[in-house]
Amino acid sequence: MHNEDLLRPVTGADDLIAPLAELNTADAVEYLNAQDREDATAVLAALPQPRAVKILEQPELRDASALVAALPPELAAALLGQMADDRATDIFHELDAAQREALLWRLGTDARLSIQKLMRYPPHTAGALMTTEFVAVPADWTVARTLQYVREVERSRETVYAIYLLDPRTRQLEQVVTMRRLITGLPETPIMEVAQVNPPIAVDPMLDQEEVARLIRRHDLLAIPVVDAGGHVLGIVTVDDILDTLIAESTEDVQKFGGVEALDKPYMHIGFGEMIRKRAGWLSVLFLGEMLTASAMQHFEDELSKAVVLTLFIPLIMSSGGNSGSQATSLLIRSLALRELRLRDWWKVALRELPTGMVLGAILGLLAIIRIAVWQNTGLYDYGAHWKMVALTIGAALVGIVTFGSLSGSMLPFVLQRLGFDPASASAPFVATLVDVTGLVIYFSIAAAILSGTLL
Amino acid sequence: MHNEDLLRPVTGADDLIAPLAELNTADAVEYLNAQDREDATAVLAALPQPRAVKILEQPELRDASALVAALPPELAAALLGQMADDRATDIFHELDAAQREALLWRLGTDARLSIQKLMRYPPHTAGALMTTEFVAVPADWTVARTLQYVREVERSRETVYAIYLLDPRTRQLEQVVTMRRLITGLPETPIMEVAQVNPPIAVDPMLDQEEVARLIRRHDLLAIPVVDAGGHVLGIVTVDDILDTLIAESTEDVQKFGGVEALDKPYMHIGFGEMIRKRAGWLSVLFLGEMLTASAMQHFEDELSKAVVLTLFIPLIMSSGGNSGSQATSLLIRSLALRELRLRDWWKVALRELPTGMVLGAILGLLAIIRIAVWQNTGLYDYGAHWKMVALTIGAALVGIVTFGSLSGSMLPFVLQRLGFDPASASAPFVATLVDVTGLVIYFSIAAAILSGTLL
Repeated sequence: MHNEDLLRPVTGADDLIAPLAELNTADAVEYLNAQDREDATAVLAALPQPRAVKILEQPELRDASALVAALPPELAAALLGQMADDRATDIFHELDAAQREALLWRLGTDARLSIQKLMRYPPHTAGALMTTEFVAVPADWTVARTLQYVREVERSRETVYAIYLLDPRTRQLEQVVTMRRLITGLPETPIMEVAQVNPPIAVDPMLDQEEVARLIRRHDLLAIPVVDAGGHVLGIVTVDDILDTLIAESTEDVQKFGGVEALDKPYMHIGFGEMIRKRAGWLSVLFLGEMLTASAMQHFEDELSKAVVLTLFIPLIMSSGGNSGSQATSLLIRSLALRELRLRDWWKVALRELPTGMVLGAILGLLAIIRIAVWQNTGLYDYGAHWKMVALTIGAALVGIVTFGSLSGSMLPFVLQRLGFDPASASAPFVATLVDVTGLVIYFSIAAAILSGTLL
Repeated sequence: MHNEDLLRPVTGADDLIAPLAELNTADAVEYLNAQDREDATAVLAALPQPRAVKILEQPELRDASALVAALPPELAAALLGQMADDRATDIFHELDAAQREALLWRLGTDARLSIQKLMRYPPHTAGALMTTEFVAVPADWTVARTLQYVREVERSRETVYAIYLLDPRTRQLEQVVTMRRLITGLPETPIMEVAQVNPPIAVDPMLDQEEVARLIRRHDLLAIPVVDAGGHVLGIVTVDDILDTLIAESTEDVQKFGGVEALDKPYMHIGFGEMIRKRAGWLSVLFLGEMLTASAMQHFEDELSKAVVLTLFIPLIMSSGGNSGSQATSLLIRSLALRELRLRDWWKVALRELPTGMVLGAILGLLAIIRIAVWQNTGLYDYGAHWKMVALTIGAALVGIVTFGSLSGSMLPFVLQRLGFDPASASAPFVATLVDVTGLVIYFSIAAAILSGTLL
């Protein structure tokens, strides 16, 4: 069976692809996402191959691997072979082993080798993100020869705007020339003369994708070369891969901060069981941690039964500790992610959070004292004969707990980074739980100190 | 005084700029960020102007406007005039009115007009983000003529990789041609023949920058044209502006979710007073809201004094509601931001969160019942004669509160969007506060129903 046969319209194929005639690629992807799998597969099979390839290359296409697996194997292999190799690799990653083998051996040798190479890199690394479809020429070529070469290979390259110049003998990366410099050069100029002067910025294939994004952004690049230890270019990471990465990372960060395992799929596309699993894990861990509050409360049972009035303010006081902690954590997570602060700066942060927490605690403490005084004096509620001491207790406890919350909330991302975790794994619920237990102990200790002899 | 005089090294200028000799632009920015303002200004003044311009164009340079203001006005104007107009505009925005006037009138007419035009657009819009330094040619030119024109203007354009083709008569945007298609075209081909076929994707200058980022990403563009109502190109937004925007938005989202006003400056560069203001506002609002818990508790004072055992579990139960709420909110914030869900989908989400919350609540409820049974039976703590009823109360309350938390946490971003706010303004502390008050009422109502006649 030849590939041409696959282009022959099957019955009804024209009807199937008619709605896509007027759509650009992004809209076509959206159209397919709205179809069920069978229809979407039929549309892909009926489309001209170059169009189908473009659609399959969009990371926004849902369940691309399932669609590919449902196509006739010959067609699937033909499409995968024409796709950008980094996207084809993404799809291969999601296929099961049997499907993967069946398709891999139907690919041409070049495509197969580059996909097999890319599949070896762990996810979230420069190696996993890169494409091998870049332009590299010997550094002793002229501008004219390079331009002619770019014209010939343009169709099969992900970008031609950065051209990598290799040592003609060792094939090591020597320099980078941008297309804009290239087209302004005189035809017979040696290409090294129009290249940039600074040494090229390159990354190791094992570098984390967040770090790759940071470098691309820092140096305003359209692509960054990935080189091995010997200085040979393995591939390039382009800025549009980085955009997708940044969006995905930012979703992950918000979800993690909310205390959920990263979903990596749209909300409505997660099965019920999977949704429960992604949420129940952390929720249960936090719950078990929070059980310590019950133990702490049991410990202060005497105080509780003697002074029920103290109970009234437990939720208020505890939530303030959690809130100030979650503020501090959110600030520090981003500062560490953006490299505004390093691990060694922890003490500078601690020295800032200590007075910040005290002032914030004093503000809330004052609000609480006013609240109690107003309720007491207007007769809205009677906090008892020792209401002034009670108000003082609440105020002092708020200073202590908000300070503790700010301090531990700000230190948590540092501790996580020190232990080798992503600082962004610090979640608001985690901070709240951390602060709650200690908060109760602070509250009752201050109460014991102030109220002993009167209420307690 | 001529500009050339400003390049004449002042005493010690060589020493000042010596450390920058080996540094690329990004590293030079980092070096300047580490200097105090006076030294940084002196370095900028001593550098060759093209180098100083490149450094000032980096958004990572801190307090760029203060540095510019501290330079001799002639030099400041010379540098601003050579900068990309979008970055120069950013700097003008941060100058005070007097400095702005003084510098604006020292600029050349072209630079002044384009900066004045850009300053009219509100922040965070396509208009505020765009540069007017793009390449546009009449649509009836040939490939050769266009390439020749690009070579001539290349130096003064932010990107030359997207070329905008205008109707020769009306100057309206007709089509876009990419540099890679241009260089592969034969010299005498009309340029419209190598242009893309789909209508060009363009945006209104008032479009929000998040939406611009979404379009650039969706269509894998290097730049997007900004057009007025008449179809004339006002400027373009490039992908590196979008990268910076995405990073800033993602910082803002995490900070807002943590319950802080967005900082828009690195943590260590915020003054103490400003830090307190950015945090105290939300913290106080949440505190006032949380005061309702004290009122709720006062309402249930009888129950509390009769059954101190109920008090022990208040922190545990309330935090579970807050945690499940913050999980749901974080999921929905991102789904709405990524347009995976629309406002009209709220009921689909509600129908998912209801059973999800019930199952999650049942899991936690079971954990709580096991905890109470174990403590009771091993003699670690005595929950009294009615311990089974107490355990049942806690378990049932958890189902109710976690369900309520998931439901209200997931609906909050929808409500905010409906009211015209950014759904990302929903913060974890806000959700927790929302759930805390209702959670207490749910807890005591269930307690009253189950324990009435025994403990209560």
